[in-house]
Parts: sequence; C-alpha cells; structure tokens
Amino acid sequence: MTDTAPTPVFLDCDTGVDDALAIAWLVASPGVDLVGVGAVSGNVAAATGARNTLDLLAMLGREDVPVHLGAHDFLDHPFTGGAPHVHGADGTGGVALPRAVTEVSGTSAAQALVDAARARPGELRLLAIGPLTNVALALEVEPELPRLVREVVIMGGAAMAPGNVTAVAEANIHNDPLAAARVLDAGFDLTVVGLDVTMHQRFEEEHRRALLAAGTPVTRALGEVLEFYFAFYAQRFGRPCSVLHDPLAAGVLTGDVALALAPRVPVEVDTSDGPGRGQTIADLRGLYHGFPDHFPGAPRVALEVEGDFGAVLLERLLTL
Amino acid sequence: MTDTAPTPVFLDCDTGVDDALAIAWLVASPGVDLVGVGAVSGNVAAATGARNTLDLLAMLGREDVPVHLGAHDFLDHPFTGGAPHVHGADGTGGVALPRAVTEVSGTSAAQALVDAARARPGELRLLAIGPLTNVALALEVEPELPRLVREVVIMGGAAMAPGNVTAVAEANIHNDPLAAARVLDAGFDLTVVGLDVTMHQRFEEEHRRALLAAGTPVTRALGEVLEFYFAFYAQRFGRPCSVLHDPLAAGVLTGDVALALAPRVPVEVDTSDGPGRGQTIADLRGLYHGFPDHFPGAPRVALEVEGDFGAVLLERLLTL
Repeated sequence: MTDTAPTPVFLDCDTGVDDALAIAWLVASPGVDLVGVGAVSGNVAAATGARNTLDLLAMLGREDVPVHLGAHDFLDHPFTGGAPHVHGADGTGGVALPRAVTEVSGTSAAQALVDAARARPGELRLLAIGPLTNVALALEVEPELPRLVREVVIMGGAAMAPGNVTAVAEANIHNDPLAAARVLDAGFDLTVVGLDVTMHQRFEEEHRRALLAAGTPVTRALGEVLEFYFAFYAQRFGRPCSVLHDPLAAGVLTGDVALALAPRVPVEVDTSDGPGRGQTIADLRGLYHGFPDHFPGAPRVALEVEGDFGAVLLERLLTL
Repeated sequence: MTDTAPTPVFLDCDTGVDDALAIAWLVASPGVDLVGVGAVSGNVAAATGARNTLDLLAMLGREDVPVHLGAHDFLDHPFTGGAPHVHGADGTGGVALPRAVTEVSGTSAAQALVDAARARPGELRLLAIGPLTNVALALEVEPELPRLVREVVIMGGAAMAPGNVTAVAEANIHNDPLAAARVLDAGFDLTVVGLDVTMHQRFEEEHRRALLAAGTPVTRALGEVLEFYFAFYAQRFGRPCSVLHDPLAAGVLTGDVALALAPRVPVEVDTSDGPGRGQTIADLRGLYHGFPDHFPGAPRVALEVEGDFGAVLLERLLTL
C-alpha cells in the first residue's frame, strides 16, 4: 500500500486456518484500517467462521472490528459441510480459541460491505478470501458497488495450475460458481490470486515452530492451529507444511507482494454442470508473446509473484 | 522406436501444413512402415485433406500407401470450414502441390484402421493428428480396437497450457469433443501430445530456408507450404516461425522425442456446451509431489519433452 494514511479494508472470509493467518496479517499491517469483516460459508459454515473471526479478533485486541454474518447457503445450492479434512470441523484445526464476549453485528455481511463502501466512495479495498456469495449479494443490494469500491482482491481460482477440489476447480470458486461469475463480471478493479501463485508460497515446520516459540497468545494459537493444516498438506507435499492461499491474497492487497506476472485477461467462470464446473477460465492465449492484447476492464490474474512470502508473513506475525 | 523391424503405423490426419511435416517425417523415418492413412475433416475438409495427402505421398515416392477418406462431419455436429486462416483454404498455404494420379481407396478411414489393426494384432501404432472422429467410428466398427492396437499417439488437447481455439480448448479436440471423449475412454495405450509441449517446439525462418535451399522437390514444397503458416504464427510470436504440433506427435510415436514428464492421469473431455467445451481436463493434482498416484490404464499426458525437436525434424526432412 503506497498511501500514507491507512487504507480502509473490508474482509470477507470463511475462517478457516489460512483465513486466520490473513486476518492476523491485516491486523499486523500498519497500512490497513480494517473496517469490517463478513463471514460466508466455505471452509466451515458461515456462523462457525464468524465465531472463529470474533475470537481471533479478540485475541488480536481488535474486538472493535464488527463481524457480520453472511450467507450460509450458496446462490443456487446449499452449503454441505465445508472442508473439515483440511481445516478441522471447527475451522481452527481442533484448537479451541478463547471464546470472545463479542457477537456478530445485526447487519448482514452483504449490507455491511455496501455500507462500508458507501461511507467512503472510491476508497474501500475489499479482500474476499472465501466463496463470493456475500459479494454477489452485495451487488444485488448496490449494483454500483464496483464504482464505490477502490479495488477487490480475491483468493480463488486456478488459471493454468491444477484445481484443488476437482482437476480444474479451486474450492472458493467451486463452492459458488454463480456468485464468482457475477463478481468477476461486475466491473470491479479486481485481482485474482489463485492456485497458480498460492501453491508456491509455503509455511514450513520452521515457520510454525517460530510462531510457537514467540509465545504470545496469538502467535502460539496460530502455531497450534496450523498443526492440523500442516498434516493435511503433508499428504500433498510429503512433509508437514502448508501453502499460503489466503494470506498471500492479503499480502497482494496490502502491496507487500509484488506481482511479477499478472495480465488483465478475460476470465469466465464455468457455471455449467459439466466437468469444468467452478473453473476460472482465464484467456491466457497471449502467454507466448507477452500478452499484447489489452483488456482494460478485465481482472488481473496473478500468475507469478516475487519473493518468498512465507518469510515476510512470519516476520509480520511475530510483531503480534 | 526400439524394434529392429519397422513398426506398422496407421496415420489419421487432416492435412494441413503441420500434418504435411508429420507425413514427411514418417516417410523419412526408417523405423516406420506406413500401412495406411485416413483423412478426417479438421484443418480442411476430409476430401481436401485426402487430396493433399495423396499428392504429398506421391511427391515422397509413396504412391503405394493407401489413403482412405473418413468423416466429413463430426459425430454430433457438422464440419464448418476448418482453419483457412492458419493452413490456407487448400490446407497447403496456397501452394499447389503437383497433382498425383492416385485416388482415395474404396475403404473408409475407419474400416481401414480396423482392417490394419486386425491384420497385425498387437503391432499397429496409430498416430492421430486431427479430430478423433475416424478413430471413434473405428471403435464402433470394432470395440476391441484398443486390444488390437499396440499404442495410440494423438496430437490434441491442452492440460495446463492455454487452448488455441478457446481459452482452454485445442482445435483437434474442440472440433469433435464427443469423439475425443470416446477415444480417450476406450482403453487404448494412449499418449496425449498437446499444446503443453507442442507450443514450445518451433521451426524458425532458418529451418524453412534450409528446406528451400536443399532444393529437392519435396523439401522445396515443404518450405513453400510453410510460408503461410509462418505468417499466421508471426501474429502469435512476433516473428515468422511455426510451432510443430503434428510432427512432434509423430516424433513421440517414432521414439525420437523423449518425454521428460508425462504422467498417466485421468483425462476427461468437456463435451458440455459450457465455456469449457472441448477442454481436455487432465487431473494434474499430483503435480506438486511427483504424481505419486498411479492410474495404470489412464492416458499418458505429455507435459515436457527433452531436446529441440526443430533441429531433429529438419535433419530428417533434409534426407528426403
């Protein structure tokens, strides 16, 4: 973030282990004014994710940030249980966070996003790291949202990389392809941070041990929460570690992660019931000649990022 | 090809500029006994491709190789004109080849393939470098074809690479997704040589000039035919050159191209009418850990090949 004043950020999430890291990143980032958080079903049910978010924000000393409950079900089909094998049934890898006294706001996540955007036209940055249901609902409330919001960064999709819930679909998009299609088509200044980049940024056991060793309540909790997630990725990588889906998107939003290759190209979400359902079909046919075609209104699709985000993330979390 | 005796090869093609290079490669390869060629619509109409094949084989001194007319239309939709902007309306880049006296056989391409396979059970290699319509029709004639044929190499599809007719679909598969699905599901020992590898193997202007300079009727004709194709790819790469789709598949078939990375993984063809239609959805989720899962009957998907095939191709063509 190049601004000197903190930038207002609204987060929509499905907390979730890596969502927890993203929330901690945002709170630890001095350039961020976290004005609100929406909860959507995804890794866990929306209500569970909201609870986790409240508890985590309290541990971070940010009980002041309102948490808004969002959609339990997706636009055209019900939520069916999330990813307990990845995040634990509770979304925090079986680690009970201290229960905060705060509760969710009386305003829905969609309405809260619209309110936050209207309150500061052209300033709000939206980080959406779960299914895009709440954002699609916000577009129904306020079709002018893309003009009111400064930019949107989403964690979701896979352009050339394999998917993670099907051969070609990433979980956030696959959970609600219709919502994703609406959000990607809405005309936001939008950056897609998907598996093409997130699969290459990792926390290793040394990072997790450093969090545990730092010994503050928050860093210890994050280190403990990561254990279950590491065990899931051990099946994928042959050693305990994790990829950094949501925190990487947060790092892109805050400007700490430079995009080495991120062309603006048309992106279509496959909303069919065919085998490609939930795929983000990015038109990368310009790949071989430096993307000479210009699609000014199209999403920016992150294909390569610079540097080792794991080290940057750890350093910032250790300030908590 | 490791056998000492030439291996019987049946070619199915839609000649086409790069098909012409593949045909020349097969004729120039001492390990190959080219027993027949089927023509299918694709780059051009099947009848045009058959005519080009007859003329080319005559130039190569192989009027003895029977050419069989195959499907004009695709399994569930009509042929609508091919790719004249890539291959020229005649499929030979506007270069008139000397008209051969030979004509197509009285046997269809599908029946000829079945006959060739039955005549030498377990020996025939099939190289299919056009839409897979004829091969799918052959499966209807002889469902045991996958047991009768030794192996199949196809040029088609895109696993992680962008498509070339849509963001995700390659032309051969997109022309007849239903046929491709049937062929990929039939249980052949099958290797998919798609855009992931073919886009990285090129003929440059120096290769084309070397063909022209060699000055035999065949090399001169190939050099001339390539001019139009080079002009098309100049739009893609910023200089006259061409990728080597079909000849690379031929090089894989003859064993001259080593596959550096080619996991056997499930491949589903998107036959829906959604935006992914014609995509070869290869399940590459094992990418990050060396493809530990084994799918013994699945197609081998070429993701990386060794070496510079352009140089190898040129050297062999210069023997003609």
